[in-house]
Amino acid sequence: MSNKATIRCPSNIAFIKYWGARDLARAIPVNPSISMTLRSCFSRSTVEWLDEDGEHEIRWRAAEGGLETAPPAFADRVRRHLDFLREWSGQGGRFRVATENSFPSAAGLASSASGFSALTLAVLGALDRQVSPAEQSALARLSGSGSASRSVMGGYVEWPAEGEGEGGSECHAHQLATAEHWDLRNVIAVVERGAKKTSSLDGHRRAETSPYFCTRQACLPERLEAVRRAIEERDFLRLGEVVEAEAIDLHCVAMTSTPAIFYWRPATLLVLEAVREMREDGVAAYSTMDAGANVHVICTPESEIEVAARLSRLDLDLSLIHDGVGNGPVVEPEHLF
Amino acid sequence: MSNKATIRCPSNIAFIKYWGARDLARAIPVNPSISMTLRSCFSRSTVEWLDEDGEHEIRWRAAEGGLETAPPAFADRVRRHLDFLREWSGQGGRFRVATENSFPSAAGLASSASGFSALTLAVLGALDRQVSPAEQSALARLSGSGSASRSVMGGYVEWPAEGEGEGGSECHAHQLATAEHWDLRNVIAVVERGAKKTSSLDGHRRAETSPYFCTRQACLPERLEAVRRAIEERDFLRLGEVVEAEAIDLHCVAMTSTPAIFYWRPATLLVLEAVREMREDGVAAYSTMDAGANVHVICTPESEIEVAARLSRLDLDLSLIHDGVGNGPVVEPEHLF
Repeated sequence: MSNKATIRCPSNIAFIKYWGARDLARAIPVNPSISMTLRSCFSRSTVEWLDEDGEHEIRWRAAEGGLETAPPAFADRVRRHLDFLREWSGQGGRFRVATENSFPSAAGLASSASGFSALTLAVLGALDRQVSPAEQSALARLSGSGSASRSVMGGYVEWPAEGEGEGGSECHAHQLATAEHWDLRNVIAVVERGAKKTSSLDGHRRAETSPYFCTRQACLPERLEAVRRAIEERDFLRLGEVVEAEAIDLHCVAMTSTPAIFYWRPATLLVLEAVREMREDGVAAYSTMDAGANVHVICTPESEIEVAARLSRLDLDLSLIHDGVGNGPVVEPEHLF
Repeated sequence: MSNKATIRCPSNIAFIKYWGARDLARAIPVNPSISMTLRSCFSRSTVEWLDEDGEHEIRWRAAEGGLETAPPAFADRVRRHLDFLREWSGQGGRFRVATENSFPSAAGLASSASGFSALTLAVLGALDRQVSPAEQSALARLSGSGSASRSVMGGYVEWPAEGEGEGGSECHAHQLATAEHWDLRNVIAVVERGAKKTSSLDGHRRAETSPYFCTRQACLPERLEAVRRAIEERDFLRLGEVVEAEAIDLHCVAMTSTPAIFYWRPATLLVLEAVREMREDGVAAYSTMDAGANVHVICTPESEIEVAARLSRLDLDLSLIHDGVGNGPVVEPEHLF
């Protein structure tokens, strides 16, 4: 048995957002969320288990390809999750970890979702532990990055708010539909490559200070049901209307929190406007954003080229990532170290 | 007796916004609003009453100084208000009107507030009708531009939502404090000189479609009381915190209406951000916006120069208007025609 595993795990884009936790440390959300698992934006994580005492080693691969010591804040979160998984497994020892992202970190592209789901699955691989997808999801969630619970599965994924169980183990995502069920695309307008000023974790903490938080919760059951049905029936217009309104909602809750959180950049507004104009011209496209400045333009395969062409014509310093629904994590034959 | 009068009437900036009407045509608001009457942004209106049958003549003075036929949409609103005031006065006849603004129209600078209050007062002058400030306010309100009810008075003004009376005549503004009570300044960052895409009237119509409208209403009594007390006690920080949150609220309601209304431009976000950064450096300044892209930076006399200097240093195509609390309408000796 090898004590080393490498997993490639995709990011996901939430159609209905996780924003506000009943238990932030264990990532028990206030409301259910629904996402589409991506394919082009992913994290890769190699984990080696060593049957010896000592500190974990946590590195990441920079854009240049070399392995570097991970930044302290990120390394701390990883270390805590490794400690948790070690305790869960009952195996002792220590881990060596290296991770890399295919896309900018901490910029509203859910790098923690892909990063912590990849890490979790790679740890399971290194320990040679076979667990169900539900348990994979719950374990990824317990990293503290709740959206990681959705990234261990492909296609369209719902993460309910119920089922705390022992240690929160019952609160996990499940697949609503496979990627093959509906080929949706996501043209990501990356308007900001740097890290956002306010982390999602701080956003969750402040969410309930917004006077609109409770109103949002009251609207969500109907919105969740609309998204479930739209996915089931492949109803793009229905999906898009709800998804775009939901993203604006998330940011309104953030902007009305105390202290207020503003994630949008000037280019964010211009991309949102461009997408609204596209629709007036009959292009099937809707915007969504996570807690960040970048805009995910959800579209059909037929509209993807037009969406990208129009965004490129904007006089903006943005880069586009062509993404779409994907099949979820894969085991990689090559390791990062 | 002369049948001609010219009134110069200031715009106002709302600290608590009018957004949503119980009766839009008669401008009966859902909630009370509070504003500061300005001095540098004003409309001037000359009205002549002619004791003869025929159409009203409605012109406006363009930037070049010549009189021009007013645009049809604006002329229609003016004509309806002239008809209403003629019926109210019982005098028959017709009016000749010319009007001008000292600032860009329909760009979230409350040009309809100053324009319709100036028009109303000039009609009263041309007809030589002496009425109380309360009745002036109610008559200005009945133009359909509700915020005009606040511009007929100087200083700090509250417009309650109650008191419909006969023909809405009892729903009028009253002064909370004079301009002399508290010298506040308003550095207006004009980021967009053109007319906004969605009128305030359409905004009022859509306000109640926002799921957040009712929540906003529930928050307003506390917010109104905070603003009243802050004005009374000249408590700038208390005022500013509430005023800035209130403006964000207004735009969140707009953005979550059906159809959604987006007033912000890229430069709006950058000015909002700059003002937040000023505060971190101890500069007394808070942002507010009406239904438009421009940002009113409310500040103290001590901070005004620093606010303007910092906004000027932004790499933005914006012009600044230095405004502040003013004393309300004045009769002008010179006519526009």
